[in-house]
Amino acid sequence: MYQKVRKEMEQKKVAVLGAGSWGTALAKVLVENGHDVRIWGNNEQQLEEMNRTHQNPNYLPDIHLPEGLKAIFDLKEAVKDVDAVLFVVPTKAIRPVAKQLVEAMNTKPIIIHASKGLELGTHKRLSEVLAEEIPANLRQEIVVLSGPSHAEEVAVGDITTITSACDNIETAEFVQRLFTNHYFRIYTNADVKGVEIGAALKNIIAIGAGAIHGLGYGDDAKAALMTRGLAEITRFGVALGADPLTFMGLSGVGDLIVTCTSVHSRNWRCGNQLGQGKSLDEILDHMGMIVEGVSTTKAVTELAQQLKISMPITETIYDVLYNGVEARTAVENLMKRDMRSENEF
Amino acid sequence: MYQKVRKEMEQKKVAVLGAGSWGTALAKVLVENGHDVRIWGNNEQQLEEMNRTHQNPNYLPDIHLPEGLKAIFDLKEAVKDVDAVLFVVPTKAIRPVAKQLVEAMNTKPIIIHASKGLELGTHKRLSEVLAEEIPANLRQEIVVLSGPSHAEEVAVGDITTITSACDNIETAEFVQRLFTNHYFRIYTNADVKGVEIGAALKNIIAIGAGAIHGLGYGDDAKAALMTRGLAEITRFGVALGADPLTFMGLSGVGDLIVTCTSVHSRNWRCGNQLGQGKSLDEILDHMGMIVEGVSTTKAVTELAQQLKISMPITETIYDVLYNGVEARTAVENLMKRDMRSENEF
Repeated sequence: MYQKVRKEMEQKKVAVLGAGSWGTALAKVLVENGHDVRIWGNNEQQLEEMNRTHQNPNYLPDIHLPEGLKAIFDLKEAVKDVDAVLFVVPTKAIRPVAKQLVEAMNTKPIIIHASKGLELGTHKRLSEVLAEEIPANLRQEIVVLSGPSHAEEVAVGDITTITSACDNIETAEFVQRLFTNHYFRIYTNADVKGVEIGAALKNIIAIGAGAIHGLGYGDDAKAALMTRGLAEITRFGVALGADPLTFMGLSGVGDLIVTCTSVHSRNWRCGNQLGQGKSLDEILDHMGMIVEGVSTTKAVTELAQQLKISMPITETIYDVLYNGVEARTAVENLMKRDMRSENEF
Repeated sequence: MYQKVRKEMEQKKVAVLGAGSWGTALAKVLVENGHDVRIWGNNEQQLEEMNRTHQNPNYLPDIHLPEGLKAIFDLKEAVKDVDAVLFVVPTKAIRPVAKQLVEAMNTKPIIIHASKGLELGTHKRLSEVLAEEIPANLRQEIVVLSGPSHAEEVAVGDITTITSACDNIETAEFVQRLFTNHYFRIYTNADVKGVEIGAALKNIIAIGAGAIHGLGYGDDAKAALMTRGLAEITRFGVALGADPLTFMGLSGVGDLIVTCTSVHSRNWRCGNQLGQGKSLDEILDHMGMIVEGVSTTKAVTELAQQLKISMPITETIYDVLYNGVEARTAVENLMKRDMRSENEF
């Protein structure tokens, strides 16, 4: 398969923006697939250490990175002559980094992003933010990568499947070929909205699943929350114009499963500690990494209220995160709601 | 809520046929809800012990059963004057027990079943088998109960949600009221086919998820299998006339999640041991309980071939169970298949 990919596609130049765990794991895949890959981040010392030690110890401990991976602190140098730019920065950094990119790039690259959230304030999807900041005449199409994937597993070559979504299916297929190898499989999808909404909103449900666990509830309660959570995500997506079947796919239920059932997930861990009675400030201070679900809960609650979409689970988690409602009280009220039929959308 | 249920519904007489873990847990719920409940099984010694000790140690260890629960070996006595009969016997016992019931009963009860499988040979759903064996003039409607539920969790009063499915929604609502209390919540659904197909087929995917774990793969691979498995179940269901959205509900993805991610599940444990290299005979001998997914895999593979429905995961598991294909080879071939787009149904 590795051989086949090399034969199918000549070497491409790709810049990965964001040197966290997921950016680093995706960059490693691209180098292994034979591409010329530069990884850029905002911490010069971390990038120097990556070049010197071929490790990224704070984000992907114990992983040896390929020697071909170049970490570059100067954005202009990082994106010089690239065919594609992959954004893997936190949601709140998408807009400022896109602004910087426009000043720095000397080609008309495909823009890919693998971030998961909605922009606070504007409530926009991340491909919308990218489209606003990078004028259409300076780039190719925008592609979204999303699916059930732990950076830690991809980095050791465990089998992983994700979705490449783009309005233009040929561009989605280009990104599919760019990444596919014997352990990393990409499926295409034309429903960009559905893929981005599933990616962002599953982090909210993961906080809930963690809280359920932290409170001492069992597998049945967690499955109930995940199932009703999926219904809620789908309802939200359909209201915004997404295809309901997208939420049955890798970027929907697949990512929901992996995020809600694994201790790797920061969102799950945040919820778990909320369930154990810790305060949000205390948890976030200790975590030291961004927990995307916390601000996504805020963005989605606001947008759902504007659009009058019923989101009982999201609103409950919002109350725990932002209104000081105790997790146990919130979950118990939620589970006792008078919802009697499954058919809601 | 308990009080409310008692007020809403007067005491009903219910016979539970099957004294395994799930039958016992459901009988316990009904007694707690104030109903007159008799549990019937085919092991007289076990039933005597249940009456004497108020325990069912082989199936629900460490659970104290309510004193009001009567275990009765004589079927005629067990079903005397009942309003409802709940079948919780293994799939292969549904038809013979239904034949016995017709001879034994003196009322025209609602028939409920909470079993999960398709009949071997005929490939029929269990409500179809029941409808064949119990003439319509001798009974009310047939209702299916299914959802993400471990008997062990329901028996200790952990929050659990399941679906009550019937063509006649009023009968589904009767069963909903019969079971609902503060920890056990029932949602109604009119898609009997979809609920039964989801219930049966998730056991196949659970064997696969166990095998993935036994082989040493990670969460990403398991989520991929579950997501593609859900797509396969949905495709099968739609071909047989079910509503695709049912598979996004409690009896579909909910039950799939709980069965694939918990060591409680016999199907998962069977798959896990297959992945570790044990033979099916060895596993089943040691388990001592019925593993429904093993025969469901056979029934579904046969029916899918007849109806020309593409079921790559089910067929792969069939090859491991019945054709001696090594689990690692099977899984690797499956994950390497050339499936490129998510949009399949």
